[in-house]
Amino acid sequence: MQLRFLGTSAGVPTRTRNVSALALTAEGQRRWTLIDCGEGTQQQLMRTPLSAARLEAVFITHIHGDHCYGLPGLLASASMAGRQTALIIVGPQAVRDYLEAVTTTTGLHLGFDLIHVDAATLVDNPLTLSDITVRTARLSHGVECYAYALEERHVEASLNVERLKAEGVTPGPLWGRLQRGETVIDEQGRQLSGADYRLPARTPRRLVVAGDNDTPDLLAPICQDADVLVHEATYTEAVIEQRGTDNGHSSAARIAAFAERAGLAQLVLTHFSPRYVSHPGATPSISDIDAEARAHFGGALMLAEDLAVFDLSRDHRLYRCE
Amino acid sequence: MQLRFLGTSAGVPTRTRNVSALALTAEGQRRWTLIDCGEGTQQQLMRTPLSAARLEAVFITHIHGDHCYGLPGLLASASMAGRQTALIIVGPQAVRDYLEAVTTTTGLHLGFDLIHVDAATLVDNPLTLSDITVRTARLSHGVECYAYALEERHVEASLNVERLKAEGVTPGPLWGRLQRGETVIDEQGRQLSGADYRLPARTPRRLVVAGDNDTPDLLAPICQDADVLVHEATYTEAVIEQRGTDNGHSSAARIAAFAERAGLAQLVLTHFSPRYVSHPGATPSISDIDAEARAHFGGALMLAEDLAVFDLSRDHRLYRCE
Repeated sequence: MQLRFLGTSAGVPTRTRNVSALALTAEGQRRWTLIDCGEGTQQQLMRTPLSAARLEAVFITHIHGDHCYGLPGLLASASMAGRQTALIIVGPQAVRDYLEAVTTTTGLHLGFDLIHVDAATLVDNPLTLSDITVRTARLSHGVECYAYALEERHVEASLNVERLKAEGVTPGPLWGRLQRGETVIDEQGRQLSGADYRLPARTPRRLVVAGDNDTPDLLAPICQDADVLVHEATYTEAVIEQRGTDNGHSSAARIAAFAERAGLAQLVLTHFSPRYVSHPGATPSISDIDAEARAHFGGALMLAEDLAVFDLSRDHRLYRCE
Repeated sequence: MQLRFLGTSAGVPTRTRNVSALALTAEGQRRWTLIDCGEGTQQQLMRTPLSAARLEAVFITHIHGDHCYGLPGLLASASMAGRQTALIIVGPQAVRDYLEAVTTTTGLHLGFDLIHVDAATLVDNPLTLSDITVRTARLSHGVECYAYALEERHVEASLNVERLKAEGVTPGPLWGRLQRGETVIDEQGRQLSGADYRLPARTPRRLVVAGDNDTPDLLAPICQDADVLVHEATYTEAVIEQRGTDNGHSSAARIAAFAERAGLAQLVLTHFSPRYVSHPGATPSISDIDAEARAHFGGALMLAEDLAVFDLSRDHRLYRCE
């Protein structure tokens, strides 16, 4: 499963970081999903192999402009490129109101349907897409805001050899057909269904992508068994203290400490205030965020960059590959 | 007066051309105006010396998304950067409806006022800004669409030497003070007001920036005395024929023939369909648009590119300077 960051800046774009958007592609699949869609996301997509024609669903964490102002343009361009396949839009109710208001006031006619799904309904009832299932958890950010837990659906099968042996099914090509899920007749004339003899070869990969949030502990239930948490670290503690407010955001320290408490193995930070710059010696710097997080989290820590690609492999480990 | 193209693609962005936006800066002024604001305009601005803090007015030609979907993000970012000065927004009524719908549905609170001006009212009553006056002409594009005629306000003064001589005002430093517009007492004890002795040194510069438009002749009245017309040339005739529709747009031939009929000295084409590419040998190519226009227009013809800067000098000639 590949995570491709399209925007990693908080609030406003900078020369090197666009506003929030993250693409998720399941292994070997051409369908993909988008989490948040700040202004300029369609321009960022032109710098990747992804096409809006293959986009299956868009998840919006919350209604703030830096997370959704790229949506009308993305939809309009997909329509002009001939898309006819319906697109699933998941988010707070405000996202639906926003899109309906924009399409009405600007006369935007899409050549495909939008299937709106209220993110609140996915807290208890997961949404099943082609390659993933998705649940939500409510966060704290002033406006209605969500984290999305995305779990892969199609885990390779291994054979339940113990059961086959116990039932006296003779090893041979028939075992391979059962592993592929076929229904077969064995030497003894028994009809055997592959579904009864298949076991998942491993646990499914699971990642949580959170919206803006000042209360990391709200993520505890949804982060159980997660391989990776992607979360904002808009500020360092020093800047929050200097500003006198966290503006509904987490510091690097707070989200890192949560990840440590929750026993997470891997944490990706993103959504950095534009005040943190990347060139050496600058103050404050992105390296301040990195250092503050490392002081509180002993697992694998990564800081997102625009167009960075991370691979969550079948062994549940996250590697940066681009 | 400088024209800086921020986006020159029609409908959807490409890797080399963003969607429509054009910045106009008066000589030596830090205030500037923006004409159209497609998605990603604020990102393009980061590649220029212009700051949204100094933006005096935004003119939107029409409500199609590739001309206005960058507006909410630009306003939000200006507000986050601390802007408090009111901003003038000129456009069809639909632009006001769109902005009000977006601010309402996304909870966007701006730290400055928007002063909405209906473009329809400027057909007969020009709008006076700090450095320019602006009139409009209605175009033909399916939705309400305008051309903006922008005329500079502050033309250098020369002295009315004939009148000074006729009135027996002795040449000397006093003439210089009158030229600067001061009120002085001359040797004969007369009070003389500079305003009575100043003449404009030249005609004011005037440019017309048009929105999408399938009927160039609608521009005839507003193009009288214009130094430059900036107009879309979305297609060549061959592509319109092949598509079977002009989709409410002009061909290079049609707008060039109009410019020739209107006696315009300078024409800048922009808003090219993404099918026209720039690399040599490609078909159809941007050079097809250039060639088609040149066959119908004998004046100075230029094709816009993203981030290209044109200077309209005091001698009314347009030069590409970046």
